[in-house]
Amino acid sequence: MTTNQESDTLVPVAGGRGLPMTRLEAFSDGVFAIAITLLVLEIAIPLGAEEDLLGALVGQWPSYLAYVISYLTIGWVWIGHSATTSHVERADGIFLRLNLLLLMGVAFLPFPTKIMAEYLGNSEPERVAVVFYGIVLLVIALLLDVLWRYAVRSRELLRSDLSDDELAGLTRKSTASLGMFLGSIVLGVFLPTFAVFAYLIASAYLVIPFRTIRQAIARRGD
Amino acid sequence: MTTNQESDTLVPVAGGRGLPMTRLEAFSDGVFAIAITLLVLEIAIPLGAEEDLLGALVGQWPSYLAYVISYLTIGWVWIGHSATTSHVERADGIFLRLNLLLLMGVAFLPFPTKIMAEYLGNSEPERVAVVFYGIVLLVIALLLDVLWRYAVRSRELLRSDLSDDELAGLTRKSTASLGMFLGSIVLGVFLPTFAVFAYLIASAYLVIPFRTIRQAIARRGD
Amino acid sequence: MTTNQESDTLVPVAGGRGLPMTRLEAFSDGVFAIAITLLVLEIAIPLGAEEDLLGALVGQWPSYLAYVISYLTIGWVWIGHSATTSHVERADGIFLRLNLLLLMGVAFLPFPTKIMAEYLGNSEPERVAVVFYGIVLLVIALLLDVLWRYAVRSRELLRSDLSDDELAGLTRKSTASLGMFLGSIVLGVFLPTFAVFAYLIASAYLVIPFRTIRQAIARRGD
Amino acid sequence: MTTNQESDTLVPVAGGRGLPMTRLEAFSDGVFAIAITLLVLEIAIPLGAEEDLLGALVGQWPSYLAYVISYLTIGWVWIGHSATTSHVERADGIFLRLNLLLLMGVAFLPFPTKIMAEYLGNSEPERVAVVFYGIVLLVIALLLDVLWRYAVRSRELLRSDLSDDELAGLTRKSTASLGMFLGSIVLGVFLPTFAVFAYLIASAYLVIPFRTIRQAIARRGD
Repeated sequence: MTTNQESDTLVPVAGGRGLPMTRLEAFSDGVFAIAITLLVLEIAIPLGAEEDLLGALVGQWPSYLAYVISYLTIGWVWIGHSATTSHVERADGIFLRLNLLLLMGVAFLPFPTKIMAEYLGNSEPERVAVVFYGIVLLVIALLLDVLWRYAVRSRELLRSDLSDDELAGLTRKSTASLGMFLGSIVLGVFLPTFAVFAYLIASAYLVIPFRTIRQAIARRGD
Repeated sequence: MTTNQESDTLVPVAGGRGLPMTRLEAFSDGVFAIAITLLVLEIAIPLGAEEDLLGALVGQWPSYLAYVISYLTIGWVWIGHSATTSHVERADGIFLRLNLLLLMGVAFLPFPTKIMAEYLGNSEPERVAVVFYGIVLLVIALLLDVLWRYAVRSRELLRSDLSDDELAGLTRKSTASLGMFLGSIVLGVFLPTFAVFAYLIASAYLVIPFRTIRQAIARRGD
Repeated sequence: MTTNQESDTLVPVAGGRGLPMTRLEAFSDGVFAIAITLLVLEIAIPLGAEEDLLGALVGQWPSYLAYVISYLTIGWVWIGHSATTSHVERADGIFLRLNLLLLMGVAFLPFPTKIMAEYLGNSEPERVAVVFYGIVLLVIALLLDVLWRYAVRSRELLRSDLSDDELAGLTRKSTASLGMFLGSIVLGVFLPTFAVFAYLIASAYLVIPFRTIRQAIARRGD
Repeated sequence: MTTNQESDTLVPVAGGRGLPMTRLEAFSDGVFAIAITLLVLEIAIPLGAEEDLLGALVGQWPSYLAYVISYLTIGWVWIGHSATTSHVERADGIFLRLNLLLLMGVAFLPFPTKIMAEYLGNSEPERVAVVFYGIVLLVIALLLDVLWRYAVRSRELLRSDLSDDELAGLTRKSTASLGMFLGSIVLGVFLPTFAVFAYLIASAYLVIPFRTIRQAIARRGD
């Protein structure tokens, strides 16, 4: 038994109990926080803006749009990741690596964001930029889905106070995100500009808790 | 009940008790720390500084001024955020998203900081840059105010050991910040350079604990 | 006794018990998370990409390759670091500094990554870039090995629930990484392009838990 | 009493006990980790390095030297900061702001580092760059000293298990750092290149625990 554990490529196991979630969460929060904050570095000062700074700032709407979509996306992935790890008691070696893979997608996002901000409105490159961006979004959503499903399957990782209804609900939500991004990418092949707004709607939908808001309004109405 | 929770767009709920504050604080501290540290990347080496490096370094005072104001602003927002979360016991789905929105403002601040540092002293663009910067400051202050008020309103989120006096005090302080930034922006439309110093005074006022210092001096005098 | 401690260049000792691991872990996680996320900044938008953005994006494979290798390397060093600190109860002054040295290597990695991505495929500079990159990888692996061995030697730092088998296993794994990187560097002197793939294989081998995966498959087969 | 607290510009007080150190430490660790990792971004790829990449990499020694000094400096300030906060039980409003000021110095360090790396070896600008860099080092050391002395003076913040010997020792060490940097700056006015090595020696002296190493050797000799 002990021999199995030691051979597991440096998996942090103290007494066979698996890595406590604290470090995995701290490291992940770091990557999420940095990726979400680095996005702003991609917004450049427009050249020749001395003449008409207001116009130049307004003319940079593709950068702001790409910034907002990427920010919301990292935001909801962080929420989904928090949901996942708050249900997980300890990380085994595979969970650890799936998590690293998900974070690789998140850490990579500033690059396609920069590409899309650069080429929005430029006919042909726009198509490539928008589809490339969408594929990265889809891969991130897919990796979050895989991480969540892995935690659910190996039920020994899960906290015991989690009902089957909750599990089913989270799984359904996760699947919905895949459908939305896949649909937006297909749209992006034909109508790139529309696809960008589809990304915006999908990420806003994923991050805004419509049901909670409706409930809060209903409760106030009582 | 459980069905309500699962449908809440991946809100991390373990046993219906809401997300513990630790991850929200860790992620937020990450964003605050990164945004406040990224500010320095916007200070560029002046071109052609070989001739007179000292003069070139002194000539970059707009960059230092913008750096200090943005640093102090993120500093007091971090303090206000700490005050808010230290009073809050658990985060519901809406608190989580309001927090993401506040952090979006904070993460965006390096961009208007760079713009203002670039155009201070350039008559017309200066006006636009200073007002744009002020609006971002105001939006951040507003989002902090909303986050705080939301926590106070849904009293179930608050720690029980918080007196009404304390709540009223924190709310008053938060409102004062809105007034100061709004006033500075209006000033910025007519006298941009003066508005920059108004921002400096406002952010310094918000971050320096005058009352505490006076009390400490009074205590020593005893 | 107390005099010994105070003179230890500001070693954090509260009551002579050594620094608790929490801050060392938080600081280290920060550096790991930032270094792994900064890697993406080195991937530049290809110039003149308007003509053929797809071709330009594909043509940047050296950047993606360097990105993946560095990401996996920081990933496994983080896992190894987690394994080390999860076994360590408290940090003495030397452990603290060895840790700072390891983090210096990790924080430096984006620079050789950028160099390698820039010069892959450029005959002579490629050789220098690949060997330089490999040496940094080797130094990082060596520093992780030293940190781990130091913790094992000064057994008073270790948790008591750690068997000799586990210690031997972790030590063997760590030594293997040194051999792999040393071999890849030697290869890099003669066949730089092949060495890059050797780095990729080594870092993938170190981060992927083959044994755990085989076990999981075996368990499902039961 | 409560009214005093509320008016203290949003100081986080939960039940009048002051801010727990966890968030202050998390935020500070974030700034330290980011500042120490951002340093590498200032090392640029030498232009025209295709011809002789090895020579170009070697020719960038000023960048590496500046990198190492700044890294060691942030390293020992982090150790000193850990020592301070590990002795402090809770942060009052003034401690919080002194901490923000210290972190401002740390976050600013990448800028003078870049300047010094750029102008080392350039006769006249070198003098300005080296003295400017030294002044920032001195200010950081001074702010760490002030933070430490403030904690010691307002003994109510300190943990009770701290002997007077330990306090005196830490204070002495802190004063020594001020003397070393002040001396190096004066040297920098006359012999800039020598001053850089004086900075290197000072930062290495502050970070390396000579006494601990000697003790460890002595213990092995027993």
